[in-house]
Amino acid sequence: VRADDVDRELARRMQGYGRGARMKIERDRVEWLSGVRAGETLGSPVAMLIANRDWSNWEDVMAAEGTPGDLRRRRVSRPRPGHADLAGVLKYDRLDARDILERASARETAARVAAGALARRLLEEFGIEIGSHVVSLGGIRAAAPAELPWPLDEVADRSEVRTLDAAADARIMARIDAAKQAGDTLGGEVEIVARGLPVGLGSHVSWDRKLDGRLAGALMSLPAVKAVEVGLGVEAARRPGSEVHDAVDAAPGMTPPAGESRGGVRRRSNRAGASRGVSPLASRWCCGSP
Amino acid sequence: VRADDVDRELARRMQGYGRGARMKIERDRVEWLSGVRAGETLGSPVAMLIANRDWSNWEDVMAAEGTPGDLRRRRVSRPRPGHADLAGVLKYDRLDARDILERASARETAARVAAGALARRLLEEFGIEIGSHVVSLGGIRAAAPAELPWPLDEVADRSEVRTLDAAADARIMARIDAAKQAGDTLGGEVEIVARGLPVGLGSHVSWDRKLDGRLAGALMSLPAVKAVEVGLGVEAARRPGSEVHDAVDAAPGMTPPAGESRGGVRRRSNRAGASRGVSPLASRWCCGSP
Amino acid sequence: VRADDVDRELARRMQGYGRGARMKIERDRVEWLSGVRAGETLGSPVAMLIANRDWSNWEDVMAAEGTPGDLRRRRVSRPRPGHADLAGVLKYDRLDARDILERASARETAARVAAGALARRLLEEFGIEIGSHVVSLGGIRAAAPAELPWPLDEVADRSEVRTLDAAADARIMARIDAAKQAGDTLGGEVEIVARGLPVGLGSHVSWDRKLDGRLAGALMSLPAVKAVEVGLGVEAARRPGSEVHDAVDAAPGMTPPAGESRGGVRRRSNRAGASRGVSPLASRWCCGSP
Amino acid sequence: VRADDVDRELARRMQGYGRGARMKIERDRVEWLSGVRAGETLGSPVAMLIANRDWSNWEDVMAAEGTPGDLRRRRVSRPRPGHADLAGVLKYDRLDARDILERASARETAARVAAGALARRLLEEFGIEIGSHVVSLGGIRAAAPAELPWPLDEVADRSEVRTLDAAADARIMARIDAAKQAGDTLGGEVEIVARGLPVGLGSHVSWDRKLDGRLAGALMSLPAVKAVEVGLGVEAARRPGSEVHDAVDAAPGMTPPAGESRGGVRRRSNRAGASRGVSPLASRWCCGSP
Repeated sequence: VRADDVDRELARRMQGYGRGARMKIERDRVEWLSGVRAGETLGSPVAMLIANRDWSNWEDVMAAEGTPGDLRRRRVSRPRPGHADLAGVLKYDRLDARDILERASARETAARVAAGALARRLLEEFGIEIGSHVVSLGGIRAAAPAELPWPLDEVADRSEVRTLDAAADARIMARIDAAKQAGDTLGGEVEIVARGLPVGLGSHVSWDRKLDGRLAGALMSLPAVKAVEVGLGVEAARRPGSEVHDAVDAAPGMTPPAGESRGGVRRRSNRAGASRGVSPLASRWCCGSP
Repeated sequence: VRADDVDRELARRMQGYGRGARMKIERDRVEWLSGVRAGETLGSPVAMLIANRDWSNWEDVMAAEGTPGDLRRRRVSRPRPGHADLAGVLKYDRLDARDILERASARETAARVAAGALARRLLEEFGIEIGSHVVSLGGIRAAAPAELPWPLDEVADRSEVRTLDAAADARIMARIDAAKQAGDTLGGEVEIVARGLPVGLGSHVSWDRKLDGRLAGALMSLPAVKAVEVGLGVEAARRPGSEVHDAVDAAPGMTPPAGESRGGVRRRSNRAGASRGVSPLASRWCCGSP
Repeated sequence: VRADDVDRELARRMQGYGRGARMKIERDRVEWLSGVRAGETLGSPVAMLIANRDWSNWEDVMAAEGTPGDLRRRRVSRPRPGHADLAGVLKYDRLDARDILERASARETAARVAAGALARRLLEEFGIEIGSHVVSLGGIRAAAPAELPWPLDEVADRSEVRTLDAAADARIMARIDAAKQAGDTLGGEVEIVARGLPVGLGSHVSWDRKLDGRLAGALMSLPAVKAVEVGLGVEAARRPGSEVHDAVDAAPGMTPPAGESRGGVRRRSNRAGASRGVSPLASRWCCGSP
Repeated sequence: VRADDVDRELARRMQGYGRGARMKIERDRVEWLSGVRAGETLGSPVAMLIANRDWSNWEDVMAAEGTPGDLRRRRVSRPRPGHADLAGVLKYDRLDARDILERASARETAARVAAGALARRLLEEFGIEIGSHVVSLGGIRAAAPAELPWPLDEVADRSEVRTLDAAADARIMARIDAAKQAGDTLGGEVEIVARGLPVGLGSHVSWDRKLDGRLAGALMSLPAVKAVEVGLGVEAARRPGSEVHDAVDAAPGMTPPAGESRGGVRRRSNRAGASRGVSPLASRWCCGSP
């Protein structure tokens, strides 16, 4: 594993048409603190440090060993809607919302991206690929081909708004420009797809190890995410069961060994998503306005 | 805490227009095995046993100490779509899908309902109320008043399909009848609401303790649930930020004590749902066809 | 896995020269509630129920749904030394020490023995054997041969006080008789040995996964246990390092494959016990007076 | 909380008569990475970095992004007894024992000391004090007064070998000198005492939350520790019960309120140690030769 594997994902996190100055500041690079040597993991915990490039501008205000006077100088006392500012200040009895917002901010996701990059590198060893693309932004839908192109992330990265629909891109960017002009923000929906997953990942026995539940929990813990769907998602609630379930067929050319009652099967569709499927996972999640 | 507190929730789980014979069998009653004495919890773990009323019909086939012959007699070898049968049989190397389906079945949720009933009883001590109602079933939407009636569960229980919309009930039941006739099934959407929550429940500091994430994870771990929304849900991704965030106002009549920079606030709306709000949680989830 | 595998261990727990009436009551038998079918585990959680044979004598006093009157009738208000009675009553605000003592009692260990029997059955599949014998009781030491006899538990069970030293047994039993006569109790020391362990069990990287630490923690959580030693134990603190460490030799007849820098080694001694050894684990723990 | 609170404990870790060059290198200082601002914790995770002062000498060999050639240059292929070298190399399939020993080394305890310093600072807010002193070293016992002096650590720090027995110190230091001369090492026993603990810390209901068990597990996870005793320790196994248990008396001047069956008690002794006592914890552990 190389720092490049992580830095590439950190860079993708900072992409995006119309991104402001803050994102420019944060050209993140990971520094290995432990657990990796000469490009190999050692079995011991991997610690990564992502220095805050903006730190020098804030050192006096945020200093761990500063005086209360330093702290008072640039106090933030107006809690912003859509953030943890108010609840956090009340919960931990703070006078400065900065004590809350610096933790609950988008920077927290940088750590997740770094950890995720390592996880992705591990999954790669088992032939598992993960990718994502934007399926709607600012209320404009972006089409996607029935058969997704791979490596999905590389293809999506070619679009400034990470869709697979060049025609939609211009309209989306125009809407972003208009929202910026109006001092407003926009939200969107992203589809995440994994392929090459082995059967049986997760668990059917313990609720807290079920893959659907763990993925939904992880995604919904992102402040901007307000909905998570798996497979057909909400649509599954509106169709009859006959149009929801993924029938299992004996698969020609996959004849099970004689005397075997298992193996040699194929799903006709992938509506239910990952946790029961032999086919790729399709998780779809939507983020509210940042 | 009384067994009635739990049995009432177990009974609600078994309600439902058009429920089949299996549900009739399962008139569940909880038996305390430990942790409760004379109606009080003792600090030690609470263990509850819900006997399977249908057990006597299966004892010879399912016996823990049976012979392989007993087991072979009624083997299930055809995995059903929409269930864990296939993945489970492959993962744990079983010859009988019954080893999987009896665990992954709806019966597993009986244990969750019993544990949840105890949790609800605890929350009651803190003035926290939880309720739910059906907002769509079989593709038919059920309206709900802007101000929800409480106790919400009692009101919803008056409807055979647990809506707050008597007009919709007849149409929904007709659709259920038609689906049964056609040998098909239907799905629906449920809204879960909690009120009386203190500010700061959950966490803004650790992803795995965030309330939104934990609730989404728990709900999505139910086999039939394929989508979870919090607050505005998917809709939040389609609106501009100005119509998504919940503005914070200084609240008249809630003046903070002099010299205090906190307190005395009110949200103008509740679009974001629980984890940041001072107002009630609105979690909405949707279940696929059972 | 059969109920016999568990019941045998439950019976061993009840052995012991001079055991009183309480132990006679508790001829425990396990009942599988879930996770086992026709003698095989299914991948789902294994639940075992050990009914309290003495229950019928206590049902009215201990009933989960009883009245406070039932409870008051046989209240225990005198906390015993050497037990959790006093601390528990204060911590959980109880009026009856029975609410504490029934949980903190020796019966709690019945559940551990049942779980341990299952774990032992699993280890057996990997060629790992575990056994124990008494090395001192009431201050009288019991000798053990340099090479322990296996299966160790079977040999120790032949002694009424589970030693490997027939000469010591008579003296120990006489001391037990005298203590009973005097209304007193005695303590002892037990050695637990595992053999067939693979190298690398546990962890050198994370303190909470280290085998020594986990074993010590589990043993010390038994109310009667006041000391845990691994390998040489306390003695290791009194000897010079040259008489403590286990030297590593290249082992003749275990030549590593050419070009390999690992493998083909042997320890000269086993003073350090398990976690670093290629040789058997020797854990020694001592229990205070019951 | 100040860095000084942590650095003081890190400095104590490096004390010790006859300590070698390695310890001199490691004059550790903590750097707050997150969770602390202007001397207050913020509710978010506290991250501390202790830079390795010796790093510059090793950077080329240990580099995370180095080449296999860098790595091969100073490979360690001779596993030391009394260390995790051999087991770790086999478990994680490494060619260089340095990948193991740098993690399993004494440096790992620096992180524990830093975390413990923070925990001690928290306990201080509740009036809980912790201290330790050496009770034997190299087989020479150091006496301690019946009533320990407080602050215990400050008093023990005045001795070069951290005893409370000036007479023993000279003999101990002479033995250390002799061992060094002979190229050998020595071990010792340490007593750790906490006072001001509230009743009910830990648990009588769940084995994995019992204080005795958790403390024993944490101590035994230190590589050099081979025995942990609580209260009387091993001695408890050799005395009759009447000389082991701590009798509970109604305490004069602590009369419980009328009608109350609890409160107003006192222990006559503290043989059992912490988890059941109303009196101070006395944990004793012994470390093998370093």
